[in-house]
Order: sequence, then C-alpha cells, then structure tokens
Amino acid sequence: MRIALDAMGSDNCPEPEIRGAVEAANLFGDEITLIGPEDILRPRLQELSGDGVPVYIIHTTDTIIMEDKGRKLARKAKRNPMTTMAVGMDMLKDGEVDAFVTAGNTGGALATAYFRLGTIPGVKRPALTGLFPVKGGYCAVLDIGANPDCKPEFLLQFAVMGSVYVNNVLNIPQPRVGLISNGEEAGKGNELVRDTYSLLKSSGLNFIGNLEGKELFGGGADVAVTDGFTGNVLLKSSEAVAQLITGTLRQELNRSIRTKLGALLAKPAFTSIKKLLDPGEIGAVPLLGIDGLVFIGHGRSDSYAIVSAIRSARQAVESNLLDALSTAVQERLENLQSRIQDD
Amino acid sequence: MRIALDAMGSDNCPEPEIRGAVEAANLFGDEITLIGPEDILRPRLQELSGDGVPVYIIHTTDTIIMEDKGRKLARKAKRNPMTTMAVGMDMLKDGEVDAFVTAGNTGGALATAYFRLGTIPGVKRPALTGLFPVKGGYCAVLDIGANPDCKPEFLLQFAVMGSVYVNNVLNIPQPRVGLISNGEEAGKGNELVRDTYSLLKSSGLNFIGNLEGKELFGGGADVAVTDGFTGNVLLKSSEAVAQLITGTLRQELNRSIRTKLGALLAKPAFTSIKKLLDPGEIGAVPLLGIDGLVFIGHGRSDSYAIVSAIRSARQAVESNLLDALSTAVQERLENLQSRIQDD
Repeated sequence: MRIALDAMGSDNCPEPEIRGAVEAANLFGDEITLIGPEDILRPRLQELSGDGVPVYIIHTTDTIIMEDKGRKLARKAKRNPMTTMAVGMDMLKDGEVDAFVTAGNTGGALATAYFRLGTIPGVKRPALTGLFPVKGGYCAVLDIGANPDCKPEFLLQFAVMGSVYVNNVLNIPQPRVGLISNGEEAGKGNELVRDTYSLLKSSGLNFIGNLEGKELFGGGADVAVTDGFTGNVLLKSSEAVAQLITGTLRQELNRSIRTKLGALLAKPAFTSIKKLLDPGEIGAVPLLGIDGLVFIGHGRSDSYAIVSAIRSARQAVESNLLDALSTAVQERLENLQSRIQDD
Repeated sequence: MRIALDAMGSDNCPEPEIRGAVEAANLFGDEITLIGPEDILRPRLQELSGDGVPVYIIHTTDTIIMEDKGRKLARKAKRNPMTTMAVGMDMLKDGEVDAFVTAGNTGGALATAYFRLGTIPGVKRPALTGLFPVKGGYCAVLDIGANPDCKPEFLLQFAVMGSVYVNNVLNIPQPRVGLISNGEEAGKGNELVRDTYSLLKSSGLNFIGNLEGKELFGGGADVAVTDGFTGNVLLKSSEAVAQLITGTLRQELNRSIRTKLGALLAKPAFTSIKKLLDPGEIGAVPLLGIDGLVFIGHGRSDSYAIVSAIRSARQAVESNLLDALSTAVQERLENLQSRIQDD
C-alpha cells in the first residue's frame, strides 16, 4: 500500500510525521511518501530510518499553516498547486498513492480536496467528521464545520456516509445513527431537524431517533448527524468544558502538599481521563464525500497519533471505503427517486 | 418583600423548598408563600419553623411534573389554573407577591408564564437563560431552548435582556456580550449568526464579537446569545461532557486501594470541581421577556440552592429588573426604528 503524508501538518511538524512515517513503514510494510521541504526532512529521516525502510520524500516548500483562515486560506487552497496538501492530493488523484494523510489545517485540507479532487458523484456536500470520545468508545459526529447551513438531504447523506465509514474503518456493524436535537421525542428540534427526522426514519439506516448530549456522550450512538454550525459549536464547547474541568483540577491538585500527594497516588485514574480525551487512538478521520481517501488528524498529533492515522487510512483502503461510499450514496439516491415517483 | 415559592418543583420536593423558605424568611425577613398541598406542607413547616417566621401556605394539589412533555405539558400549562405554577403566577399578576420562584419543569414554567403573564410590551420572544459555570464565574447563555428557530431581531433582544439581567442581578457593569459561532472572525457563522452580527455591532451593547467554546468557558463573556436549538445542544452537551469526565474519574479512582487513598488526600480538589459545576450558588435565573419576575431553579436544587434562588429573585425585585428590561427593550426598538427612518 502507498500512503502520502503531509510532513508539515501537525503543530510540532515535521518530527511527529517523520517518526510516524518510519514507524508505520516498519509496522505495516507500506510505502510512505513524506511531502515537504527535502532539506529539512532528509537529514532527520536518515537519522531515524535504517536501510530499506520504504519512506520517500517529495519536495515542496509551500504549506497551508494553522493560522491561514478565511479568504487567504481559500485562495491558497484554490490557487497554489505546490502546498504539501495540493501535492499530496494530486498524487492521490493520479493514482500514485492510495490515501493522503495530514494533521494540518482542517479547513485548508477540505478546501484543497474540494478543488483538486472534487466530490463523489451524487454527493451534495462533503462533511467534516469529528470522532467524539464517549462512554465505551467513539461517536462519529458530522458535519462539524464544513456546512454551517444545511438542508435535510445533506444530513441524510451525512448519515449514509457516516454509517459506511464507521462500519468499514471502525468495524462497527449496523451503526446506530442519531440526529442531534434539543429533545429526544420525535417532533422536537428546529425546522431542519424536524424535516430531517422523517427522511432518516424511512432511510433504511439503523436510525435511533433524536439524540441529546446525555445519550451522545453516554455512548448511545455510533454516528450523530447535525448541521456544520451546531456540530462545530458542539465540538469546540465539549473540548472547552473538558479543558475547564481538567485545568481546574490540575490547579487545585497543585494547591497543597496533601493534594499533590493525593494526585501522585491517584495518577492511574488521571491517566485514564487523559486517554479518554486523547485523539491519538484513532489518529485521523476521512473527509467524507470527497472523491479520494483524505484523512485528517489532530493538530496535536504525536508520532503515535500519526501511526494511528496511517492505520485508519490503510483500513479505509483495504475495506474499499471510497467504493462503498459511492455505492451507498448512489443506492440511496435511486431509492429516494423511485419513492418520489411512486408517490 | 413577598416571594411565592413553588413547593412542588424540585426533584426532592417539598423538603428543599420548605427548608429553603424558612431559611430565607429568617435570613432576609421576607414573606415567603409556599404553594402546594397544605396537608403535606403544614406539618413539616411547623416542625421546621419557630414562631413568627413569615412563611405561609397557599393550598393547591395540582402540579406540573418533570415528566410532563410536549402536548400534555402545553395543555396543562394553558388549561389548568390550579397547578402550583399557575397559582403562584396569578398571585404575581395580581400584585400579591413581588416574584415567583420554582425549581420545577422549565418548559412548564415558561408555558404557564407565557399564558398567564404574557410578555413585556415590545418583546418578540421570551428566552430561557442558562447560567454556565466558566473560568472565574458565570456566563448567561440565552436562549437555551424556548425558541429552536430564531430571527436576528430575537437574538438582539436576547442580548439586550441578558445584559440588563447580569447587570442588575449579578452586579456586572457593562456586560460583555458575545455571539456564539463556529469561528471568531466576523463573517463566520450560519445565516442567522451572520445577519445578527451587524445588528449587535451597531446596538450600543458591549458587543465583543463571535464566541467559540474556548472563550465562552474561558470566561471571555458575561452574556452569550444563540438560538434556542444551539443553546440547548450546548447546555446538554456541556453537562454530559462534565458527567462523562467526573463519572469516569470517580470509577477510576475506585479501582485500587492506591487510587482510593489518593482520592481521599486529593478530596479538596474534587470539592472545588463539584463547586465549579454546582448550580446552587446562583440558584435560579429569570424567564427573560415574561411580564413578571419568574425565577427558575435547577431540578436538583437543595435547600441551599432554594435560598440562593430566593436571593436572586429579591435582588431582581430590589433592582427593578422588570422596569429595566422594559425600558431597555423599548429604547432599543425606538433606536432601531429611528435608524430605519434615517436610512
């Protein structure tokens, strides 16, 4: 298998990427292509890799950085074919690699992918997926920011694509799909949610109804769909609440010798919390709806997270995620059209 | 001052209410009227109160319970004049008390208030306010569920009313008002947020721009406005994340003798977290936009929270919250209209 990896994505790049590439190549036997400035990457790669490890470098110096936003970001994504992301995605488009992985600017990756790879035929909007840590595992929430204003059909497609993804890549059979709402009962929700409910109900998906925070974080669903505005607020607020609690706890534990000693003894428990909130276990999520396997990891990724990201990407390649998405979207469209004709 | 208190609101009612009423009467010297079944309330009240404590009872047996939802709830709120909430609000309407406090069903209180008290002239929609624990204090978030679909004018009024509330009741001068969005930059947001931004910008309020989870929970704003759908998702998700973290921590701390001992030593830190997440400090928030001072406490209220709720309500009475809201809404409407005429 051949994976292209953005060497300049993560907050601490390129160290986690170079290390992760070497580890993944050793672990999986894949060909990993690092994309970034050769003069920086080459010496470090030679230090880290032994002979015969299949890690290659494609040289480019342009990058989309985390600080790129708004119009500047859109222009870079659309006009610059030499960013690490553009080069990697062009390799993907030309069939030189099977998947592209980046821990860089999510909006930049989405925009670049949209311009260079386009969408799977029939897909109305690509979605950003967030893998939320919940009780007992993860819940894939989409959209978490690509589409602030959505129509019911978009949410239906998010549900279809999310189901295929968690089934193929996370090995969850018959994923439970929930619709994020302000109340569990059918009929609750804003206009968008109320209109989407009936679409999901008759979709043939394993739709479990409306979803509130309690069920979402309690592990009651494998896939949760929402518009990109709500999903983004949900994501950032959840992260902020977790930070507020863990930050306050850290501060309070440092307050006296007694609590410091307590913290030392209770360390295994805090490690569990850290692991619960750590995105490193899965490493990366796909840009669902884009016509190519593009996986986005967290900016905070370390080399362990990069290896996990590559693992997720290769699992997607092995399970033919792209074909499965395409087929599922197509079937659903035909279903819907035949039902409209029947009416 | 005279306060009516729903005796049958909280999850453990009527004990927290009876205790809270007696404590508040002793503490503030107010007349507190408990509303609920006299045969249950009277004996316990006599056990708890000494002679001359001004706590009274108005008898009624009907209640809106936490489980009441949807149509059943709406019918009860509209048609039953004998629920504890209806009786209390009628006393408020007739000028027999200065404020009404309940720790019961929030939707029930809002619906009852809407039918029995109506809205302040000029108010387009009443809002539910959530007081979120944030770094260093609280942020008043509105709407958290009354209006799943909103227009920009509604959000502007929420901002006006929220500012008056935190100024008058929480004593925060020049409250910082933020607009919850999926990005800090102006121009980010869904259609509603983008249209609301300019209204807030030219409102004369202390508008600090778009607000993400990080700033919200980091204590960057005193008032945060959003539509009732997003606000409700935000509220319930934040609570659920907090529960997931504290629940996991509790479980992990119980795993071994070592961690149990650690937890014992670190207890002061955990107490701080509990206090951070405890709604008891403020006790209750007003139904903003309703033509009467109705304060809603958390279902989990204990007697301490009930006393806090009464304290918040009396602070609202003393600071003439209702007049201040009415004036602020009126001024803003005239401002807007004159600006439209100038254009």
